[in-house]
Amino acid sequence: MFRKILYPTDFSEPARKALDYVKKLREAGSEEIVILHVVEKGIVEAYEEAFAWAGKDVVAETEKLDEELIEKAKKQMEEDVKELEGLGFSVKKHITIGSPWEEILKVAESEDVSLIVMGSHGCGRLSCELEKLIGSTTENVVRHAKKSVLVVR
Amino acid sequence: MFRKILYPTDFSEPARKALDYVKKLREAGSEEIVILHVVEKGIVEAYEEAFAWAGKDVVAETEKLDEELIEKAKKQMEEDVKELEGLGFSVKKHITIGSPWEEILKVAESEDVSLIVMGSHGCGRLSCELEKLIGSTTENVVRHAKKSVLVVR
Repeated sequence: MFRKILYPTDFSEPARKALDYVKKLREAGSEEIVILHVVEKGIVEAYEEAFAWAGKDVVAETEKLDEELIEKAKKQMEEDVKELEGLGFSVKKHITIGSPWEEILKVAESEDVSLIVMGSHGCGRLSCELEKLIGSTTENVVRHAKKSVLVVR
Repeated sequence: MFRKILYPTDFSEPARKALDYVKKLREAGSEEIVILHVVEKGIVEAYEEAFAWAGKDVVAETEKLDEELIEKAKKQMEEDVKELEGLGFSVKKHITIGSPWEEILKVAESEDVSLIVMGSHGCGRLSCELEKLIGSTTENVVRHAKKSVLVVR
């Protein structure tokens, strides 16, 4: 029921709170954690547009910034990975670019996890108004997931 | 994190599946279960209307049927209660009439639970189309709860 957990993180406070629940679930038989960070496609599209507008080499500049964001995410992930490994979990890392909830569902299926554990917050990096309109990442995961989801508050 | 769990049940298969997760969480420190069944206000309103249309004594007939539904729920709940008590949980029972998700949130707050564990199914007793429009009980609980929610699939 709790053996393999997908823990998506945007490195926010709500995500860190969800990590406490992941750790606690070790007592209920959790063994393996898939940690996932999604670089938001919306952000990538925004800077692509900015580069174009500024007359820069869009492909080269975008690629460079993508790599930098992924590199930064890798570093931010390291702390969580060490902590989880220290507790005896085996840990697998994923960093992707896309729509967060769609990427979360994709990885949940491809890794065939038992459970998704994630934090919940009203607004992501896009504006609150947009989130209300399109639904939050958490809401979309709960609505569309074929796996059980623990939403941490 | 998992000490006191609210387990809302409509006695369906998804609810029974959620109960397995409740039981498993004993290993992660769960001690107390609040088990809740909500008699749907929509059903009560429907039979009120039917009694009125049939020219019956609406107040008396509705009261009688309400009591019968609550009595039936009490009996259906007994099996789960015995099972949970047998595992060492302390169990508290609630049966109310109202909108399921609103009642779930009310009890989650008044009992100050650590976590809500509930099943997820596409459609309740009302039609699927209506559920899509107003959102399922689970979706509404996840959207509005101040507590963590484990949605079991």
